[in-house]
Amino acid sequence: MSIYLDNAATSVRKPESVINAIKNTIENYGNPARGVYTESLNSSRLIYEARENIAKFVGCPEVSHVIFTSGATQALNMAIAGIFHKGDHVITTEFEHNSVLRPLNHLKALGIIELDYVKTDSQCNIDFRDFERLIKKNTKAIVCTHASNVTGDILDIGIIGEIAYTHNLCFILDASQTIGVIGIDMVKNHINALCFSGHKGLMGATGTGCLCINDIDVEPIFFGGTGIQSFEPVSLREYPEKLEVGTPNIIGISGLNAAVQYINSVGIERIFCHESMLRSYFIGEMQALGRYRIMQNEALNHTATVAVIPKDTDASGLASYLSDHGIAIRAGVHCAPLLVNALGQQNNGIARFSFGYMNTQEEIDILIDTLKQVSVN
Amino acid sequence: MSIYLDNAATSVRKPESVINAIKNTIENYGNPARGVYTESLNSSRLIYEARENIAKFVGCPEVSHVIFTSGATQALNMAIAGIFHKGDHVITTEFEHNSVLRPLNHLKALGIIELDYVKTDSQCNIDFRDFERLIKKNTKAIVCTHASNVTGDILDIGIIGEIAYTHNLCFILDASQTIGVIGIDMVKNHINALCFSGHKGLMGATGTGCLCINDIDVEPIFFGGTGIQSFEPVSLREYPEKLEVGTPNIIGISGLNAAVQYINSVGIERIFCHESMLRSYFIGEMQALGRYRIMQNEALNHTATVAVIPKDTDASGLASYLSDHGIAIRAGVHCAPLLVNALGQQNNGIARFSFGYMNTQEEIDILIDTLKQVSVN
Repeated sequence: MSIYLDNAATSVRKPESVINAIKNTIENYGNPARGVYTESLNSSRLIYEARENIAKFVGCPEVSHVIFTSGATQALNMAIAGIFHKGDHVITTEFEHNSVLRPLNHLKALGIIELDYVKTDSQCNIDFRDFERLIKKNTKAIVCTHASNVTGDILDIGIIGEIAYTHNLCFILDASQTIGVIGIDMVKNHINALCFSGHKGLMGATGTGCLCINDIDVEPIFFGGTGIQSFEPVSLREYPEKLEVGTPNIIGISGLNAAVQYINSVGIERIFCHESMLRSYFIGEMQALGRYRIMQNEALNHTATVAVIPKDTDASGLASYLSDHGIAIRAGVHCAPLLVNALGQQNNGIARFSFGYMNTQEEIDILIDTLKQVSVN
Repeated sequence: MSIYLDNAATSVRKPESVINAIKNTIENYGNPARGVYTESLNSSRLIYEARENIAKFVGCPEVSHVIFTSGATQALNMAIAGIFHKGDHVITTEFEHNSVLRPLNHLKALGIIELDYVKTDSQCNIDFRDFERLIKKNTKAIVCTHASNVTGDILDIGIIGEIAYTHNLCFILDASQTIGVIGIDMVKNHINALCFSGHKGLMGATGTGCLCINDIDVEPIFFGGTGIQSFEPVSLREYPEKLEVGTPNIIGISGLNAAVQYINSVGIERIFCHESMLRSYFIGEMQALGRYRIMQNEALNHTATVAVIPKDTDASGLASYLSDHGIAIRAGVHCAPLLVNALGQQNNGIARFSFGYMNTQEEIDILIDTLKQVSVN
């Protein structure tokens, strides 16, 4: 197995309890909410427990407002397609991933929404007052990421949520890069729709994610069976059934439930501290090497994702070299075209090192030793 | 564990190879198509292999036209939302599941499509010439199930496909109840969009399914990252990326890949024969008991799903009684409101017994013995 430093893409090493939860759910669990027998009831209970644990974990006021999705992308598409109407104005940022930009661009291309961006520059500067400056009479929502998946820059959702709340805007947050690492409280931060994947910081399985809603109504983009009220012609009014149709991903949800419990048992602050320590250590060592530029906004807090521009090679060459030496990082645009443009790296791409709770300082030592050999060769 | 007879809802017992595939993929597999390191390449190869095996399995002419989804519901929603335009007329049937009816009803409610139904009656009669009779100048497609999830009645897709082809209509097939049990050839049966779940007859995990397309273009309803061409503003033109965005369900796809290989190794005809034998044996024994009415169209072929109406109790009472005796069946409307109406059972529901490849004749003997005790009590 590689020294895996691509945790911003997905977690590879999982907690033992997550693996066991998935393994134990493969058999013995039926289709929930549709039967009175043991295997079906097992699933219903498991899914309710997962919903309850996740609601507590993110401060979602209603357990039934935790909607399981196939990932952050589905959650974001559901939130974005589910709240806007023709003529709405939306504020987003240049820090966004394509899972935010493309659903918004689609609605813009259809002539449904107007779109404005809080901009950044080659130093990742952001002026949070821009969120307020961009508000117009028809502004309906702010849709933004909690942290860049390229630079790790954390946006201050305290400020953004307050602006949204003050101006009666809907606040849709993409927490894919922070969930499981930074505590989030939907009520405190005035978040109306919280979207995240289950397989990154939460260390659950791919194919899982959530849309949690608070004090808004989201219209469905999917329609299908719910096991209840089967004579309704289109969709139900109740959550989660309004937004959750078809057979759920039971093994994935089981893993997610175990993942949230694991993070609670470790303590999210401890996870953040460990990852921050790895990040600081890595940046210090890289700066000592002298041949790498770190792209970040130093005024902001950071996740353990670090954007690196090698001064004497290109990003993809660096990723290939490291891969040949058993170290997994990612090079490219990272599905964040506006940020990569702002950083002036549209032609070269960026080498991204992203650390997770399972990484160790020793792995960074091996990484640094391996990087030192680049110059020797 | 129950004697599990709710295979039309989901499979509970899985082939050993499927369980192992899922277990082996939980760790060691990264995010595909986005990295050059081992764990990412492992996933890319695995997903390509799964796509290739599924394409062969259903006769999908292009490997890239196999789209992984979170289930049949997502696949059907994507196909239905992705091909219709304002003014299109659509033909469906009263045999459909809500995963077909509700997406169609949604488009009808929006004023986008007109909808007509091939009808049935209390004997599940269907006149396949109705598909042709209902065709109008603006008919765009036939959307129907391959087999009822309530009665097991198999619709003749040879006839329906031929009608669709002759009249240049798009043929969208919901094969959720037949995939893995009855061989399907998209080209031979003129199927343009084949939608199915991975966790029923295929015996893979929940959270998986496919939309396979043939000779049509489907517009996406989801937008997000693909790991390639990140500067495109909305979506890509190439499949699968046009319809498959975000991180895929890698463990689920791994299970699905193993499931298809398992079914190939057993032989799909052998699976169908085994299930048909169970069905015939069950129906014979039930008829001998004399207190149960079987709802089916005797002129059609059948999956191993049997709709039963108890003459001296109600369906849910029967399901509860069997559940108390360790036997899992399902009672209710089964998300098929039009069929349950046609059968005149909207108030009582239907008891559904659905057998899978893992069931045995001995389990049916226990079931029948248990049912015999109902009258004793």
